[in-house]
Amino acid sequence: MKQLQAHLEVHLAVSLLQARYAQAIDDDRLEEWPEFFTDDCLYVVTSHDNHVRGLQAGIVYCDSKGMLQDRVSGLREANIFESHRYRHIVSLPATVQAEGGVVKARTPFAVYRITRRKPSELFVTGSYEDEFVQGADGELRIARRVVVCDSSVFDTLLAIPL
Amino acid sequence: MKQLQAHLEVHLAVSLLQARYAQAIDDDRLEEWPEFFTDDCLYVVTSHDNHVRGLQAGIVYCDSKGMLQDRVSGLREANIFESHRYRHIVSLPATVQAEGGVVKARTPFAVYRITRRKPSELFVTGSYEDEFVQGADGELRIARRVVVCDSSVFDTLLAIPL
Amino acid sequence: MKQLQAHLEVHLAVSLLQARYAQAIDDDRLEEWPEFFTDDCLYVVTSHDNHVRGLQAGIVYCDSKGMLQDRVSGLREANIFESHRYRHIVSLPATVQAEGGVVKARTPFAVYRITRRKPSELFVTGSYEDEFVQGADGELRIARRVVVCDSSVFDTLLAIPL
Repeated sequence: MKQLQAHLEVHLAVSLLQARYAQAIDDDRLEEWPEFFTDDCLYVVTSHDNHVRGLQAGIVYCDSKGMLQDRVSGLREANIFESHRYRHIVSLPATVQAEGGVVKARTPFAVYRITRRKPSELFVTGSYEDEFVQGADGELRIARRVVVCDSSVFDTLLAIPL
Repeated sequence: MKQLQAHLEVHLAVSLLQARYAQAIDDDRLEEWPEFFTDDCLYVVTSHDNHVRGLQAGIVYCDSKGMLQDRVSGLREANIFESHRYRHIVSLPATVQAEGGVVKARTPFAVYRITRRKPSELFVTGSYEDEFVQGADGELRIARRVVVCDSSVFDTLLAIPL
Repeated sequence: MKQLQAHLEVHLAVSLLQARYAQAIDDDRLEEWPEFFTDDCLYVVTSHDNHVRGLQAGIVYCDSKGMLQDRVSGLREANIFESHRYRHIVSLPATVQAEGGVVKARTPFAVYRITRRKPSELFVTGSYEDEFVQGADGELRIARRVVVCDSSVFDTLLAIPL
């Protein structure tokens, strides 16, 4: 019973983090995006085909919070963020509380792209393959996020974070 | 710990309300739709562009449960409800328990339209921007729902509630 | 309060089962799929039109775990599973704890199809109409799942489980 209660709390914490992460991006509050990660995080965007073959390459590869912040700065300077927005629809996460305080979760998602004067359109589907740790403030942070996109066929510009 | 337990309960209550709200609409049980709201509720459907500019106008504007009931009656008389149905896919909600018993939540959604002899097709994506209060029966009710649609480009008929 | 706690636990158990069910299929771990069901389960895939008319026929009809296992074997032999994959996006479930230990839930879903060298595309939307029971190991199992597809118009091959 105590174990189930602990799982309820972990599941809630992961669900809330996923909801807030998606909304920060969809609201164009990109400067808050790196704050969801640990300092020495790994953030990779890759395709299903590459992921099952164990290829690390990926389409985006960042291995520190600093790299994520640089990415946001670059986006702001390039000014492309105004041309379109995203809408993340996040599916129910499957969470596992692993040993040593690491929480693992897999969370499927669909991302829609919104372009001015056009209806929303499906951009990409995939799955967040995550490892979370608890920060000093008690909040979960992303230590490792591999964004596995189902298709290899999508806009390789991929400016906005997924 | 007590606080987390309270948050778990609020999060569950919001999640269940969103699930039941969507299913009442998708099942064509439209007469139940106004019952999710308080008597002096606000229900607005607007576009992202209008919402960020602070425009109240909206595509639909109802400021009482009576207006919602009138809307359903109008739909039933117009008989257009038979021509298509919706399917709501609701993303994980981000909930905040505010002061004074008001619960705030933001819940992204995708709505699909189902028309006879055609496959389901994406109708609109957006976000419910909500304020809930607890009714006398202990159930959460919607005091304020602003349905922010991502695109400005969609069927302005918009017969069925979102 | 005790009742709410029980509902929290049931809601979590259903949410986790739905997440794991979808991921087993989307990961092509089809051999695990029958294990989500009881031995004497009912698994039906049908259309909304047939469902509201009370027709049992369905597009797929299996009334035991053995039939589900046969279906997976057939798929593996036919080797069509390699040609495409699914991505399930599962909406928030509405759960009810009924008498006698049976849990009922309704969970909307959207399924995307991923075909090599093509972007993800919407395949079908619908709702899981479920009854769960607790197995001897304490885990929820599906005693009855009616997969109600919104449209009658989709690929009748329907090789992969929904």
